[in-house]
Amino acid sequence: MDITQFSQINPPQRLLMGPGPINADPRVLRAMSSQLLGQYDPAMTHYMNEVMALYRGVFCTENRWTMLIDGTSRAGIEAVLVSAIRPGDKVLVPVFGRFGHLLCEIARRCRAEVHTLEVPWGEVFTPDQIEDAIKKVKPRLLLTVQGDTSTTMLQPLAELGEICRRHHVLFYTDATASIGGNALETDAWGLDAISAGMQKCLGGPSGTSPITLSDNMVDVIRQRKCVEEGIRTEAHSDGSEEMIYSNYFDLGMIMDYWGPERLNHHTEATTALFGARECARLILQEGLDNGIARHKLHGDALLAGIQHMGLETFGNLQYKMNNVLGVMIPQGVNGDLVRKLMLEDFGIEIGTSFGPLHGKVWRIGTMGYNARKDCVMQTLSALEAVLNHLGFNTVQGAAMQAAWDHYRHGSC
Amino acid sequence: MDITQFSQINPPQRLLMGPGPINADPRVLRAMSSQLLGQYDPAMTHYMNEVMALYRGVFCTENRWTMLIDGTSRAGIEAVLVSAIRPGDKVLVPVFGRFGHLLCEIARRCRAEVHTLEVPWGEVFTPDQIEDAIKKVKPRLLLTVQGDTSTTMLQPLAELGEICRRHHVLFYTDATASIGGNALETDAWGLDAISAGMQKCLGGPSGTSPITLSDNMVDVIRQRKCVEEGIRTEAHSDGSEEMIYSNYFDLGMIMDYWGPERLNHHTEATTALFGARECARLILQEGLDNGIARHKLHGDALLAGIQHMGLETFGNLQYKMNNVLGVMIPQGVNGDLVRKLMLEDFGIEIGTSFGPLHGKVWRIGTMGYNARKDCVMQTLSALEAVLNHLGFNTVQGAAMQAAWDHYRHGSC
Repeated sequence: MDITQFSQINPPQRLLMGPGPINADPRVLRAMSSQLLGQYDPAMTHYMNEVMALYRGVFCTENRWTMLIDGTSRAGIEAVLVSAIRPGDKVLVPVFGRFGHLLCEIARRCRAEVHTLEVPWGEVFTPDQIEDAIKKVKPRLLLTVQGDTSTTMLQPLAELGEICRRHHVLFYTDATASIGGNALETDAWGLDAISAGMQKCLGGPSGTSPITLSDNMVDVIRQRKCVEEGIRTEAHSDGSEEMIYSNYFDLGMIMDYWGPERLNHHTEATTALFGARECARLILQEGLDNGIARHKLHGDALLAGIQHMGLETFGNLQYKMNNVLGVMIPQGVNGDLVRKLMLEDFGIEIGTSFGPLHGKVWRIGTMGYNARKDCVMQTLSALEAVLNHLGFNTVQGAAMQAAWDHYRHGSC
Repeated sequence: MDITQFSQINPPQRLLMGPGPINADPRVLRAMSSQLLGQYDPAMTHYMNEVMALYRGVFCTENRWTMLIDGTSRAGIEAVLVSAIRPGDKVLVPVFGRFGHLLCEIARRCRAEVHTLEVPWGEVFTPDQIEDAIKKVKPRLLLTVQGDTSTTMLQPLAELGEICRRHHVLFYTDATASIGGNALETDAWGLDAISAGMQKCLGGPSGTSPITLSDNMVDVIRQRKCVEEGIRTEAHSDGSEEMIYSNYFDLGMIMDYWGPERLNHHTEATTALFGARECARLILQEGLDNGIARHKLHGDALLAGIQHMGLETFGNLQYKMNNVLGVMIPQGVNGDLVRKLMLEDFGIEIGTSFGPLHGKVWRIGTMGYNARKDCVMQTLSALEAVLNHLGFNTVQGAAMQAAWDHYRHGSC
């Protein structure tokens, strides 16, 4: 191997306006370039405690067990599911996009009995639809996605907690795509577990997954306690239920590592933790509600521009996430060629779609660090230029003026 | 919450001379501060391909499937084990320290029938001992640890591949603590799978785990193929054997993501990948053999100094890893107080021990970026000063002179 052909990392400059990952906030990248600490250095465990406190703020919760899973957002999902689902448990998954299918998939790997409920892509569920299914299936867990980037839809969750409590169902949501850009009230909405990711509205790089667990969920997990060989002592006893079929994702052991016992599990990914801490700190410094309003302002500005460019949007706009928009690829326009010209000639990435929407819909994000006016304006003008170049006619200036008008009347 | 009490990340300066994590190479941290790319940006997939090529160099292998698992080194272990072990499979684990117990633990979570072989801590196994056990147990997999930091021992692996091949046993090793600082020849030694971590001799932060898989191992995994709902198409068919009981760690799907199909799985942790790429690039630029010789030089210098300080060492030195040394805590000395003074007054971290060695042995590492003369000299002089301060007598100057003498005659 000729090692000289591998130069130092020098990624091309990109404005990432797809459904995520997006550009990380430069302050987060700077935090991540800090030198490391030992795992049990008092300065390190202090940072771990601070991360717990900061994410309580981000999740709007008093939950003690609010921490990070060392892996991508999908690792956070699997940690919650494999720790909560015993083989044979019934789970109900309302599927309104690809990430609902992912919950089914992960639950199936946990050997759950998986029941689904489906609506057409671009729609969400009413609380009644979900309650009816709960009555019929009698699941142990309800597994939901709050915001499914595959369809851009946001499932209302506020009324589901009370329904779950009445039917003794544990209530989980995957908030990877929605958190920080849309309201999410862990305690007020009665959620038992949430997992999230960094690379959407939180403005960091993928690689660590914040989660929060209610006391009720912690009790369920503690019943499966199993301290690993090599570190267990006589003081440790096992829970009354069957063990969790993963070591890495055993939330009982992860709690013992983040808790005062500091029982060794993995070696915390310090750099990712520094980044996650900075993301939460910046969000709370801005104010959670201010940040959500910012996502709405720029999401709506993008929407106004797209509509005045003469493009159709995808899905029920009443339930759209603030931070991502589905845009129908017009008849006769090569969607992939548009994305290619956007990327190569303007350095701007917009997203393609999965499954039934593939080739029909672009997805444009305005989230995290990129929920900014300049990002929206650059993306709209570049998209219009590319569409015109490929023969799609627009009313000159109309899209940009709609965005300007929106900003003039917007509240942020 | 009063957000102003959370200041920006500003870790105290530490020289991390424990068993890992150690200080990351500053060039690695700089690479990790690079701005992000989209998941399918040609520049990103090019970097992924480069990472595969670079780690083939680090692992001394031609294995096509050489890639990263997004999680700590323990995630890499679990990905290999859960993908390779079918419930009920027999596995044999030669246990010579804590991380052998960890392999048992993870295999048990994969529902393997786990058989162990033990030697006292501080020793390793002969090939005959392992072959005899293979004959008796007839396992499907042999799960080994190459270097177990809990005892500082390095298990010789060179002869085990041929034994495994003769008995049709799949051969795995956890090289987290050893890779980059001790010889490891994937192909020449007949290994079917290896997982590693960044935070020891590779000189990066914990958070991503390089793995490599032989063609034989890939065949075993492919028989359990199961493409997830939401992205599977009619072109995808399942394997003949039962599915892998994890989605996140399903190496079949991870290969499809790193391979030309680029089938979406997790969102690659770009920042961690940039760091892992820089670690491998720096190691290959230095030359693998040169790097190993550097670890031996500084490890031996530390050993000479410790011995001339009048301290006993732990374990069979013939089988010690180059990069970590067990030092017996002298009678009448409070080991934790020594570590505390080293940390607080000198900013130097040395390690404590697990299990049977707890309170009896310090572990001092010389690895990765910290396998350097200045790190060894600072650590020796600080340790001697602290010991003297606490009333333990040494021959003034002898330890330092022994290290100087070693460097004068050393080869690096």
